[in-house]
Amino acid sequence: MEIEKYPAKAHALRVKQQLYALAPSYFSNPREAPVLLLASPRTVYWPFCDQTQPFRQNRNFYYLSGCDLPDSYLTYDTSSQTIVLYLPPVDADDVMWSGQPLSLTEAKAQFDVDDVRYSDKIGDDMASIFGGRTILTVEPLTGPEHAKVLGQLPNIKIAAADQHLLESLEEARMIKDEYELDLMRNASSISNNAHLKVMSSMNLHTNETHIHAEFVYHSLRAGSKNQSYDPICCSGHSCSTLHYVKNDEDLAGRQLILIDAGSEWQNYASDVTRTFPINGEWTTQARAIYELVLDMQTTCEKLVAPGASWEELHLLAHKILVKGFLKLGIFKGGSEEDILQSRVSCAFFPHGLGHMLGMDTHDTGGKANYQDPDPMYRYLRIRRNLESGMVVTVEPGIYFSPFLINPYIQGDECFGLGGKFIDRDVLEEYWDVGGVRIEDDVLVTETGHENFTQVPKDPDALSAIIKKALGTS
Amino acid sequence: MEIEKYPAKAHALRVKQQLYALAPSYFSNPREAPVLLLASPRTVYWPFCDQTQPFRQNRNFYYLSGCDLPDSYLTYDTSSQTIVLYLPPVDADDVMWSGQPLSLTEAKAQFDVDDVRYSDKIGDDMASIFGGRTILTVEPLTGPEHAKVLGQLPNIKIAAADQHLLESLEEARMIKDEYELDLMRNASSISNNAHLKVMSSMNLHTNETHIHAEFVYHSLRAGSKNQSYDPICCSGHSCSTLHYVKNDEDLAGRQLILIDAGSEWQNYASDVTRTFPINGEWTTQARAIYELVLDMQTTCEKLVAPGASWEELHLLAHKILVKGFLKLGIFKGGSEEDILQSRVSCAFFPHGLGHMLGMDTHDTGGKANYQDPDPMYRYLRIRRNLESGMVVTVEPGIYFSPFLINPYIQGDECFGLGGKFIDRDVLEEYWDVGGVRIEDDVLVTETGHENFTQVPKDPDALSAIIKKALGTS
Repeated sequence: MEIEKYPAKAHALRVKQQLYALAPSYFSNPREAPVLLLASPRTVYWPFCDQTQPFRQNRNFYYLSGCDLPDSYLTYDTSSQTIVLYLPPVDADDVMWSGQPLSLTEAKAQFDVDDVRYSDKIGDDMASIFGGRTILTVEPLTGPEHAKVLGQLPNIKIAAADQHLLESLEEARMIKDEYELDLMRNASSISNNAHLKVMSSMNLHTNETHIHAEFVYHSLRAGSKNQSYDPICCSGHSCSTLHYVKNDEDLAGRQLILIDAGSEWQNYASDVTRTFPINGEWTTQARAIYELVLDMQTTCEKLVAPGASWEELHLLAHKILVKGFLKLGIFKGGSEEDILQSRVSCAFFPHGLGHMLGMDTHDTGGKANYQDPDPMYRYLRIRRNLESGMVVTVEPGIYFSPFLINPYIQGDECFGLGGKFIDRDVLEEYWDVGGVRIEDDVLVTETGHENFTQVPKDPDALSAIIKKALGTS
Repeated sequence: MEIEKYPAKAHALRVKQQLYALAPSYFSNPREAPVLLLASPRTVYWPFCDQTQPFRQNRNFYYLSGCDLPDSYLTYDTSSQTIVLYLPPVDADDVMWSGQPLSLTEAKAQFDVDDVRYSDKIGDDMASIFGGRTILTVEPLTGPEHAKVLGQLPNIKIAAADQHLLESLEEARMIKDEYELDLMRNASSISNNAHLKVMSSMNLHTNETHIHAEFVYHSLRAGSKNQSYDPICCSGHSCSTLHYVKNDEDLAGRQLILIDAGSEWQNYASDVTRTFPINGEWTTQARAIYELVLDMQTTCEKLVAPGASWEELHLLAHKILVKGFLKLGIFKGGSEEDILQSRVSCAFFPHGLGHMLGMDTHDTGGKANYQDPDPMYRYLRIRRNLESGMVVTVEPGIYFSPFLINPYIQGDECFGLGGKFIDRDVLEEYWDVGGVRIEDDVLVTETGHENFTQVPKDPDALSAIIKKALGTS
């Protein structure tokens, strides 16, 4: 049985269709339909060092080839719908140290492309085959390393990215096909196991770096060579730093661990967060905040379906937060609506409800507006309705960060007057909770959604797992 | 008790002394003595992605500051012998996500420098303080990101690296001081433990990636955030690929594992290789080759001392190989000297005996000559006599790689006539050994040497550890 190939040609056709919709004039003369030219990253050495910098494949290049090699090119002729992949020529010295590279024949069998050639041919090929055609790129292919390969071809404009092509790639990549979804399910499955293993081994861990090591260990053992992003492994107050990556503090005397980590599988990401008590026992405050975040998370997740407005889901999460804080007494002195309008909930839940997930952790197509004057939506990474085939994260959080909250309390005019709704005495009891976030990876299906993340999040279930590990159950 | 600082000022003085020895004319007028200007790497994002590329501190920058931050600069005035460190200004948006950065006061307390300022001051500082002076850099500090910070200063030449300064840094870094040696001992100590843990857990491992995961796990748990280099975890035939990094093949049916991996500690490297039988039992051939490599390794290591010629040690390793191969019958039909002169031993031991070790895995000062027409020395990374304070690896190996050996057997004229000394029938029995390498990290002391690497290498000791793990002892 032939192993199914990564569907590069189907992806190319999707990109062509998007491009046709966005820029029909590109196709007004079929004999002049554009040719796409993409490059994978060059091999780069650290300065004054014979070690190469870590390689991460260009996502657009992978989308149109399924090839994970550096120093390569591809052309896609939108007219004949053919993809040609250009691999770097064999370097004999390299072979001595690193073994034989993939041959052209092997590459042709492995990738869903029409031909595979060595990159020292691409300059001549482009001149002879595409001489009079429009060449579109997604990044400027200038610089000496490209010039050497591509040559000096007067008819080929490679000095600027084409914005229509870039947007076409973003839109195409946003909707995942079944092949991609299987890769993402596999990434999630590795993450699911690794998160469970972290919780189940809490008897071994006395420092954040131990949590980090445990997660990476189970990912790597399962063949996930890269993390989707630098794992965030924090505890106590450090949980209130959103992108904490130091991961080096002792756990002693702290309430909660927050671990935000996702394994990658064949360039596709997972992105999962769990928060749980270090000793298996929830403090009253930690449990109250956790249950509130869990309510925000599960309520919003249940509503993930085609046509749902992501902005409304995000607002709904804030409404649940406000209601919960009024009940806990952290907010007081105003109606739910007044408090929501004041945006003071952004002091505790400053980021968005979630983002697109795909080859990039923050994947394409979200149309975020980081200039939005409304703090409620400024950091929301999806500003459109959900569609079947999108994969999104659903990840509300509540943080007790002096850096975020104090400007509201102090009445800094940039932050409005919402600080008056905060009861500082009640708030005092919550600083040690640090922060809580719960994050699942969710596919929008035709009828609703599928949750890829299967890691316990019920507070009693978490407690039981950790106490079992500690031998205190 | 004050924590001892990384000795940046002592390093700077060493560099100045080297520079004075190499280029005394730079100092002919004391008032015009040169000013060194170094930059740490910029924060770089992956293309079309909001994740930053992995950061690795510029080694020369670290040597003169002990500071591990990106986007920074330092100046060293060789006349007044003062170091000023320039950190990136605080970005409020960044603080929201990543927390407060190191303050200027904290930085001044932490680093062995004379002043710490924000980098938006460096352009003005350089113009006002160093207006008429010669500025030396080790890399061109051109490009828009530097121009923005450094400004357009007509008197300052930053477009080219100064070769004398570069060589001065290389020579200074080659000899380690006690502070650096303690960092290296710590890196080695983490590696020692991780290697032992890999051997002691062979009951868990059925694929090369499991070995990789086990090593990284124990490094990371001990606080080593980065590997000194991509771990090489190979088995069977893959052991003959020198820089194998796929690390993804099954161990079943294979004889040996070769693991070449080193933990990093505060930018200082360790670099250790061990080879051992997967099931704890040596085949006759594997044991014969292993004992031969061990003889090469321990004999050479014993001779590490100030004044020893590295070329002679390397040649000695080849002599032991030739003698051993004659005894095993892999070589025949010539005297030891004839065979040595034919360079056919390079088909089996193609790389050098070792290299300098420091912040870089292949550290500075070795003066390799990769153009050497003699294959015996072409890849030898140290071409000078040993001195006290150098740290070197001692890492002979023997490989059975068709790619390396066949050109000799086939009498390819590039490889000379040594192939006639190979007994192809006897060789046939050895292909499945794949490859053996044994590598220790050794400090040259005033009276001899100190071996940082304390991981078992006796073949019976290895056998016992693995059989104990497997429960077959």
